[in-house]
Amino acid sequence: MQLGMIGLGRMGANIVRRIARDGHTAVGLDRHVENIEMLRSELGDNFDGTTELTEFVGKLETPRVVWVMIPAGATGAMVDQLAGLLEPGDIIIDGGNSRYHEDITRAKDLRPKGIHYIDIGTSGGVFGLERGFCLMIGGESEQVKYLDPLLKSIAPGVEAAERTPGRQGEPSTSEQGYLHCGPAGAGHFVKMVHNGIEYGAMAAYAEGLNILHKANIGAEHNGEFSAEETPLDHPEHYMYDIDIPEVTEVWRRGSVVASWLLDLTASALYADPTLETFSGRVSDSGEGRWTLDAAVDTGVPAPVLAAALFQRFSSRGEALYADKALSAMRKAFGGHNELPGR
Amino acid sequence: MQLGMIGLGRMGANIVRRIARDGHTAVGLDRHVENIEMLRSELGDNFDGTTELTEFVGKLETPRVVWVMIPAGATGAMVDQLAGLLEPGDIIIDGGNSRYHEDITRAKDLRPKGIHYIDIGTSGGVFGLERGFCLMIGGESEQVKYLDPLLKSIAPGVEAAERTPGRQGEPSTSEQGYLHCGPAGAGHFVKMVHNGIEYGAMAAYAEGLNILHKANIGAEHNGEFSAEETPLDHPEHYMYDIDIPEVTEVWRRGSVVASWLLDLTASALYADPTLETFSGRVSDSGEGRWTLDAAVDTGVPAPVLAAALFQRFSSRGEALYADKALSAMRKAFGGHNELPGR
Amino acid sequence: MQLGMIGLGRMGANIVRRIARDGHTAVGLDRHVENIEMLRSELGDNFDGTTELTEFVGKLETPRVVWVMIPAGATGAMVDQLAGLLEPGDIIIDGGNSRYHEDITRAKDLRPKGIHYIDIGTSGGVFGLERGFCLMIGGESEQVKYLDPLLKSIAPGVEAAERTPGRQGEPSTSEQGYLHCGPAGAGHFVKMVHNGIEYGAMAAYAEGLNILHKANIGAEHNGEFSAEETPLDHPEHYMYDIDIPEVTEVWRRGSVVASWLLDLTASALYADPTLETFSGRVSDSGEGRWTLDAAVDTGVPAPVLAAALFQRFSSRGEALYADKALSAMRKAFGGHNELPGR
Amino acid sequence: MQLGMIGLGRMGANIVRRIARDGHTAVGLDRHVENIEMLRSELGDNFDGTTELTEFVGKLETPRVVWVMIPAGATGAMVDQLAGLLEPGDIIIDGGNSRYHEDITRAKDLRPKGIHYIDIGTSGGVFGLERGFCLMIGGESEQVKYLDPLLKSIAPGVEAAERTPGRQGEPSTSEQGYLHCGPAGAGHFVKMVHNGIEYGAMAAYAEGLNILHKANIGAEHNGEFSAEETPLDHPEHYMYDIDIPEVTEVWRRGSVVASWLLDLTASALYADPTLETFSGRVSDSGEGRWTLDAAVDTGVPAPVLAAALFQRFSSRGEALYADKALSAMRKAFGGHNELPGR
Repeated sequence: MQLGMIGLGRMGANIVRRIARDGHTAVGLDRHVENIEMLRSELGDNFDGTTELTEFVGKLETPRVVWVMIPAGATGAMVDQLAGLLEPGDIIIDGGNSRYHEDITRAKDLRPKGIHYIDIGTSGGVFGLERGFCLMIGGESEQVKYLDPLLKSIAPGVEAAERTPGRQGEPSTSEQGYLHCGPAGAGHFVKMVHNGIEYGAMAAYAEGLNILHKANIGAEHNGEFSAEETPLDHPEHYMYDIDIPEVTEVWRRGSVVASWLLDLTASALYADPTLETFSGRVSDSGEGRWTLDAAVDTGVPAPVLAAALFQRFSSRGEALYADKALSAMRKAFGGHNELPGR
Repeated sequence: MQLGMIGLGRMGANIVRRIARDGHTAVGLDRHVENIEMLRSELGDNFDGTTELTEFVGKLETPRVVWVMIPAGATGAMVDQLAGLLEPGDIIIDGGNSRYHEDITRAKDLRPKGIHYIDIGTSGGVFGLERGFCLMIGGESEQVKYLDPLLKSIAPGVEAAERTPGRQGEPSTSEQGYLHCGPAGAGHFVKMVHNGIEYGAMAAYAEGLNILHKANIGAEHNGEFSAEETPLDHPEHYMYDIDIPEVTEVWRRGSVVASWLLDLTASALYADPTLETFSGRVSDSGEGRWTLDAAVDTGVPAPVLAAALFQRFSSRGEALYADKALSAMRKAFGGHNELPGR
Repeated sequence: MQLGMIGLGRMGANIVRRIARDGHTAVGLDRHVENIEMLRSELGDNFDGTTELTEFVGKLETPRVVWVMIPAGATGAMVDQLAGLLEPGDIIIDGGNSRYHEDITRAKDLRPKGIHYIDIGTSGGVFGLERGFCLMIGGESEQVKYLDPLLKSIAPGVEAAERTPGRQGEPSTSEQGYLHCGPAGAGHFVKMVHNGIEYGAMAAYAEGLNILHKANIGAEHNGEFSAEETPLDHPEHYMYDIDIPEVTEVWRRGSVVASWLLDLTASALYADPTLETFSGRVSDSGEGRWTLDAAVDTGVPAPVLAAALFQRFSSRGEALYADKALSAMRKAFGGHNELPGR
Repeated sequence: MQLGMIGLGRMGANIVRRIARDGHTAVGLDRHVENIEMLRSELGDNFDGTTELTEFVGKLETPRVVWVMIPAGATGAMVDQLAGLLEPGDIIIDGGNSRYHEDITRAKDLRPKGIHYIDIGTSGGVFGLERGFCLMIGGESEQVKYLDPLLKSIAPGVEAAERTPGRQGEPSTSEQGYLHCGPAGAGHFVKMVHNGIEYGAMAAYAEGLNILHKANIGAEHNGEFSAEETPLDHPEHYMYDIDIPEVTEVWRRGSVVASWLLDLTASALYADPTLETFSGRVSDSGEGRWTLDAAVDTGVPAPVLAAALFQRFSSRGEALYADKALSAMRKAFGGHNELPGR
């Protein structure tokens, strides 16, 4: 089967590589010729590419399958351009990180033209080539079924994890790592929630490690506290000099918190035991925010996901004004001075 | 009635001033002679003082009433010293910020000696002289009753607020601003919870003002976002250049969030409209922490009080290690670089 | 000056009453004749009313000032109808709880017709008649100035609170309880944040009172704990039978947490000391949600406001599915059974 | 090597089984004869047991190694009893869920007697026999080294997970699933933090799944909202009927949130797709609470761990009083009625 891929960055290129392994072919579009050349040299006849959109469309067999894998901000314009070049029966896949609201709109806008729109939330990051990509898919059933051979090649496959007890026989697509979640937007919706969970789980590890990091303050502190500080009631309870990289390693086997995120954390801490190569300013992409918006809209309590998102904001100094306001109140009622330069 | 006051700092001195207004007398102990001299010059025959504990005790009429108003860390040792000098029937008051656990222990230890122990959580800060102090009292009923004339003078009095609808006749002590809350420790327990609430309410204002502070980012932002940033979907929704000092002023009258804390906030913002005199590092004293401990012990959900406390920790950089751990994970799975110097 | 008021419910009627006290006149529109009759009997010649929109518009002097005070869901349609009946120079005020996004749109849509649109966030609740309404105003400066005589009558006035130290001379409008916050939507934006703060402050009190409520569990608990329960390490620390209505009363005078919300809480607890007349299901209106949306959009950490909102969701059972999922996990890894009927 | 095991419940028995597989022998103590008989029939000569403590001690070779694996509440008394029967050089292991404070005290109390005390936080739950137990160990280095052959048999072994990139040569004990974390209490400290993280990660999944659970409310809701409800601005955004068991399955392969907890969740949802066998009342054991206490003591922001713990409290109705207080305030200022029976 043939796939057109727009955007041959790390994700797009690795998807092309995975389908090529199973004998599918791909046509790529990228403005960087070197990205095209690299895949051509790797994949030979299984790959063709161009820097020009019309030429790209011309190289595709009908019904065309065009996977758009470019930054979310550019996806809308690309879909619009494609809409003018494609024909009824063709399929546009948005595999990026669009907000699912846009999927709903785009699918509706393309329907009169007979062009099908499929949204695929794609997880796997830099490990996708080797591990396979987890695919969360929204759109019409008929087209999702049509794409099955490609999806199967991109996804990790059932052997990537032990089968869930009770599941037998022919593995479902979910067991192979891809799932048709519902109509337009459902793929990005499920991916959005996935990322929301990711934020919360990451924060759970990070907070726990921070407690281990401070477990020695009873020994470190000289016992002198200013009037504004809270002395430790029991310094003898905090005299542990914990080897955090080793702790993350030991938790990888047999513990309840074993996870892929923990594997990565152990790996990062093995490479940089004090995390000195990191600044502590943590970015957030849209999905974490949108998940919170969805929780608010639907009336779902999401205190953990919210705390995780807000901690990222705080890491970038975004609480500063609020903190100053607190100091101003403290000074006003208690005469506490928390001036610059402290 | 006579009161012995140990510690003539701002709080202790102002309590002495308030009782002297009503014709009570006081004996003060302080290591700074100038604190004693100041009160002597203000209050004349109603005040006597010394820098020496035994002399202090000697100046008191029995049953002695000794109010200890010194830093929490020094209170225990002072109570022990007093225990060796006082007689059965005497009363020790801890008016500072001791943890209520200690009250329970101290009251028990003093009981065999016939010395009574009263804990008083005292709120009012720098405004106590003029506004009166809100007193939350723990200890035996008989002694609390005995102290009533002093407590009434220290507290704000019923006219400090409109009476609660339905309350009639002779005002209760609660309406006058002092309350016997229960046995030993109850006063500091209620004061502790009071401070926990204070943390939460302060944070509520601070977060809200921060949202107003950012209400103009749609206009300020030049529209260029890095791959790691989330662009504003609707910059036109955030084009408000809000005058925050004026907003805090307008809320003081007729709004649901009118409060003494808001009065202070409006006052602080009038004096320093951009809060430039504050660093944003916010201290926390023990009560906020102990309130959270009590919530955990008793199984009470306290997400707001917890978030308020943790925000103060974060304001002092205590999340840094956790934030670095998040960046390490992000780099590991997504190739996101969040290096120092960004 | 004349005001047209659409909606003579509690809020609309009380606004009319306040302006009439200062000699202004009003024309009212309401579908319930009895609402009109009541105001007519109270206010005599200062009030005229009708149940019919065209007639209502006809009774107004130009430039017409029409205050719409109806449920947010109906406001849009009413503004549209008015737009067809009013003339250039007329002013529509939305005094309800519209989302500020809609103000931006409506002001823009009305501009070509020469009709001015003013949004006013109105706080004061059931006490507005007596206390005055706190008014947060968005729109064009010229029209806000034109409305000044009405706004002054509706707002509480400077005497409603002590002046902020340092403020002198002619009181600003903010000191009188009304404020022009910025262009279209700014009034509802500031009101939205006000309500977000209100949620947070309310939750702070509620959590603190809950800790007082549980302060006696050391005495109440019989000492038997199931394997799934965490026994109290120190039951002797939780043996306080706190009189919560009295505590809220004592905090009203001299304490740091004194506020109008606390006044109301003390009043409610005096009337119903065990809160037995309440179910514990807490509603939320849009403002708390929108505040959180704004925090997310602008990257402002708002953990306290979020926790307060989510606690309301939880109070209505909206966490149930999540809680079941937790039980399912606990059973899976630990064999813990948390079955229905426990 | 020989191990004495006190408590042959699921955990204790499975530890005995694992060491027996490697040729070690065990002596068991349990009050239930059938627990002893079962292991005797399984393990033959490798196991001996008794219901009587003195006899148990007598069967052990010196230096005796006694692993106590009984409920945390009973461990202290058992250690005291053992202290009277053991000899200098013997080793007591607390493998249960004691608070690490107690380890510090016990180790100190046993030191004068020459008895060594080792605390081992043991994770693995019902899967420990097959997966191996993750062991977090506190105590003196010499004794931990002495126990190495047993610890190695109990732990999962290096093959239980892929090696962390960069780790080479002879696997460290952390890679085999056991780690000497520090002096007395360090093992339970690290296990405590492990459980704190577990709470946070579990809540992250649970909240995310709840959002999926509500993703269809735009379709389900009939469009009628009471005045107290917030209508959905965009019902068309919430028209997804998500198959949650399938989503948890698809995330197991290739996604960032893949974890053992997710494996268990997928398994639980496969067995009970609607979670109807669960009540939604979620217990918490001490570790989650103690983790929060440690965060508070050390000044570490832990909003996610706190939110996760508090959500469990709320699931058991512990927010009820706070919720009623909120309703009381809402009624007072807004006339909102939230009465019982709603």
